[in-house]
Amino acid sequence: MTKPPRVTPRTLKGFRDWPPESMIPRERLIDTARRVYRSYGYCPIDTPALEYLDILSGTGSEETDRQLYKFQDHGGRWVGMRFDLTVPLARFAAQHVDRLGTPLKRYHIATVWRGENTQRGRYREFMQCDFDTIGTRSTAADVETVLVIHDLMREIGFSEFTIRLNNRMVLSGMLERLGLADRSTAVLRALDKLGKIGPDAVAEEMVSTAGATAEQARGVLRLSEITGGNDEVLRKVETLVAGSETGRAGAAKLREVIEGATAAGVSSDRLRLDLSIARGLDYYTGSVFETFLDALPDIGSVCSGGRYDNLAAMFTARELPGVGASLGLDRLLAAMEELGMVERVATPAPVFIPFFDKDRLHDYLRLAAALRAAGIGVELFPDPKRLGQQLKYADRRGFRVALIAGEDEFAKGVCQVKNLQTGGKQDVPLVDNAADVVEAVKKIL
Amino acid sequence: MTKPPRVTPRTLKGFRDWPPESMIPRERLIDTARRVYRSYGYCPIDTPALEYLDILSGTGSEETDRQLYKFQDHGGRWVGMRFDLTVPLARFAAQHVDRLGTPLKRYHIATVWRGENTQRGRYREFMQCDFDTIGTRSTAADVETVLVIHDLMREIGFSEFTIRLNNRMVLSGMLERLGLADRSTAVLRALDKLGKIGPDAVAEEMVSTAGATAEQARGVLRLSEITGGNDEVLRKVETLVAGSETGRAGAAKLREVIEGATAAGVSSDRLRLDLSIARGLDYYTGSVFETFLDALPDIGSVCSGGRYDNLAAMFTARELPGVGASLGLDRLLAAMEELGMVERVATPAPVFIPFFDKDRLHDYLRLAAALRAAGIGVELFPDPKRLGQQLKYADRRGFRVALIAGEDEFAKGVCQVKNLQTGGKQDVPLVDNAADVVEAVKKIL
Repeated sequence: MTKPPRVTPRTLKGFRDWPPESMIPRERLIDTARRVYRSYGYCPIDTPALEYLDILSGTGSEETDRQLYKFQDHGGRWVGMRFDLTVPLARFAAQHVDRLGTPLKRYHIATVWRGENTQRGRYREFMQCDFDTIGTRSTAADVETVLVIHDLMREIGFSEFTIRLNNRMVLSGMLERLGLADRSTAVLRALDKLGKIGPDAVAEEMVSTAGATAEQARGVLRLSEITGGNDEVLRKVETLVAGSETGRAGAAKLREVIEGATAAGVSSDRLRLDLSIARGLDYYTGSVFETFLDALPDIGSVCSGGRYDNLAAMFTARELPGVGASLGLDRLLAAMEELGMVERVATPAPVFIPFFDKDRLHDYLRLAAALRAAGIGVELFPDPKRLGQQLKYADRRGFRVALIAGEDEFAKGVCQVKNLQTGGKQDVPLVDNAADVVEAVKKIL
Repeated sequence: MTKPPRVTPRTLKGFRDWPPESMIPRERLIDTARRVYRSYGYCPIDTPALEYLDILSGTGSEETDRQLYKFQDHGGRWVGMRFDLTVPLARFAAQHVDRLGTPLKRYHIATVWRGENTQRGRYREFMQCDFDTIGTRSTAADVETVLVIHDLMREIGFSEFTIRLNNRMVLSGMLERLGLADRSTAVLRALDKLGKIGPDAVAEEMVSTAGATAEQARGVLRLSEITGGNDEVLRKVETLVAGSETGRAGAAKLREVIEGATAAGVSSDRLRLDLSIARGLDYYTGSVFETFLDALPDIGSVCSGGRYDNLAAMFTARELPGVGASLGLDRLLAAMEELGMVERVATPAPVFIPFFDKDRLHDYLRLAAALRAAGIGVELFPDPKRLGQQLKYADRRGFRVALIAGEDEFAKGVCQVKNLQTGGKQDVPLVDNAADVVEAVKKIL
C-alpha cells in the first residue's frame, strides 16, 4: 500500500467539534427541551439542511442573505443551507398543513448555518430549538407558550429567571398615538436595542434612522420606564392606550396571557410585563416574549418568541397565524457552565468494571450484562492493564462506582463495590445474577 | 406592504420532510440507540457538517468523491458536506485523542449528504448512527460490539434477527492458501456481493475483475458453503486455515468473540458464523459483522461494521486500531413499517383536553398542569370549537385519553375521563389537584 500524503486534522473557522464532555450536557439539555415540548403535545418534525435557494433567499434580512451558504448542486440547481428553522417551517407548513390539519404544534431541534463574522465570537454552525403552534389566533396558545418557557427553564434547573412579556399591539397603539404608526418597524428595531445600547442611543437611532422627532422618541421610551407589579403596569398601559383600538386590544391580550399563566401556576415574579420588549423581527404582531436569567442578565434573552399573523405569506395564500419561541441552546449551555450547573463527566455510564484478571473476561461480561438488565449503564475496560491505570482512567472520565473483582474476590465469591467519589468500598456476594451487587450500586447512585 | 411574488413550497430531489407521523418513530428509534450505546459507556460526540475539502476528498471511494457536496465558502475556502461519520471520526480522533485518552468510545448520530443517483431509491440526505471503540486491539471490544448490536435489535423490538460474524484474517488466510493474497481487496469486494448477485456472478467477477482463476474462485466460494452450528463451522475453519498463521489467528479471534458473546447471554441462533461475510470496505482487518432481520432478509444488513487496524492514517502517525458498527436507521425504519411495528400516532402526548366551555380556560390550564406535574403529557386544544370537531382532531392525531369537562361536569365537580380506544368513559371527581383524574388516566395508559 502506498502511503497517502498526510492531511492536517482541523476544523473550519467558526465550526467546532463537540467532544464528550461538551456533548453530554448538550444532549441532556436537548432531552429536557424535547420532554417539555412533548408534554404539551408539540410534535417533532425535521426538514432538509439544503433547500432551493429561492426558498431561503429574501426571507430574512439582507444580513442573512449575505451569510447564506449557497452553491450549485450536481444538477446545476442553486441551493442553500438553512440559516434558521422559521423559513423551513413556513415552507413545510405551506406544503403540508392541508393534510396535517391545525392546530399544528411542532418542535424542531436542528443545526443551522450562517457565514457570520466570527470576530464577534459567533459560530457559523449552531443548533436551534424552536416550538410553535400554527393555525390558531387563540390567546390560549400564547398562554401555553409562556407555560412551555416556564417549564423549560425549571426543568433545565433554573429557579431564578424572568419571562418578560409585551404585546406588539400595545406598542402599535402607542405609536399611533404618538403619530409614528407609519414608522413602526424602524422605531421598534431601535427600541429592541434598549438593553444593549441604552436609552440615549436608542432615542438617537429613532431620530436618525426612523425619522422620529426627539419628542416622539422620548414618548416611546417613556413606555419602557413604566415599572411596577403586573397589575399596576397593566392599569397604566390601559390608560395610555385608551384612545387606540389596537392598543386596547393588545392590553386586553396582555391581561389574558398573564391571568392564564398565573392560573396555571406561574408565579408573578417569573412573568413580568415589560413594555420595552419589542423583538426586532418584523413579523411579530401580538405577544412577544424574552427570557432572562436573573444571575446573568447580560447574556441577553435565552428563550424568545412571539405571535405572528401570517407565517408563510411567501409560499401560500392560506393565512397561517401562530405563536412560538426558540430556546437559545448554545447560549444557555454557556451560561450553565458559567454558573457551575454543568457536571463535568465524560461518560454516560455510571459504573466501571476494570478488566482486572485477564482470565476472567466472561465473568466481567456476565456481571456487566446483569447490571445493564437492571437499567444501570456499565463500561467494561477492554484491556487487562494494571488496575491502577484502569482506575485512573475511570476517575478521569467521572465514573461513580467501580466493581472490582480479581482472583481473591472470585475465590470468595464476591465483588468489591467501590464508591469512586467517597472512596468507600465493600465486598458484595456475587450470587443470583449479581442481584446484591445491583442493589449496592443502586444505593450509591 | 408590497406583496412579494409567491414561491412554490417544495423540497429538493432526494431530500424529504419528516412530518410528525414519521418523525415520532424516528426519534423513538434514535432514543433507543442512544440508550443502548450509553449503557455500554459510549459517549456522544458531534462534528461539523462542513469540513475542509481536503479532509473529505480522497478518503472514500471514487464514488463518494463524485457525490460530495462541495463549494467555496465566503472566505474562498473549498469546503464539503460530510458524506459519512467515519472520516469525521478519523479527523476528530487524530485531533483530540491525545487529550481524551483511550479507549475512546463514541457514538455519533448525525445527518450526512451524498449527491446520489435518486433513481435507485436513494436519498441524498440521511442519518447515520455509528458507534466505535478506538485505541484497543482487545477482542473484548469486538465482543462488546456484538453485544451492543444484540441489545440494539432487542430494544428496538426485534426478537428474530441474526448477527452474522466473520473475520477478515480467516479470509486472508484462505486467500493466502489459494494463492490470492495479492488480490484480496478485489476478491473480497466480489465476495461481498454474494447475497445480492449469487455465486455464479461472484465467481465471474473474481475471474474478470480480480484476475483469479476459475479454480481459485471456486475455492473462495467453497468457504461460503460451509454451514452448520457455530462449533462445527469453527472446527472446519480451523482445519481449512491450518497452514496459515494469519488464518489461524483469525479463527482464534472468531472463537473468542463467539464464546464471549455467549457468556454474556447471546443465544447461538442470533449469532452465526458466516464465512461469506466480507464487507466491501478495504479498511476492515479483523472481525466483520452484518445483521439481518429474519422476516426481511432481502433488505440487507441493518447493522454492519468491523475491526480496523488504523483509523486515521491520513491524519496522524499515531496508530488507532478500533472496532465499531453503524445502525442503518432509515433502512430499519422502513423495515419496521413494513412489519407493522410502527404505531401510527401523530402526537407525543397521550392525553387530550378539549376546550369545551369557552369560560373555563383557567380550569383546563390547571387540569393540564396537574397531569404534567404527574409526568403525563397533555395537549389542550387552543380554540373553543364544537366538541365533536375537537374530538375528531384528537382521534386523527391518535390521543389515547380525553378529559372532557363542560358546565355540567364543573357543576358536579367532576371531569369525564374517556378512553379514546375503547370509548369507555367515567366521571372522576376534580379534587386534590386532580389526583383522582391522574390515577384514572394512569390506569388507562
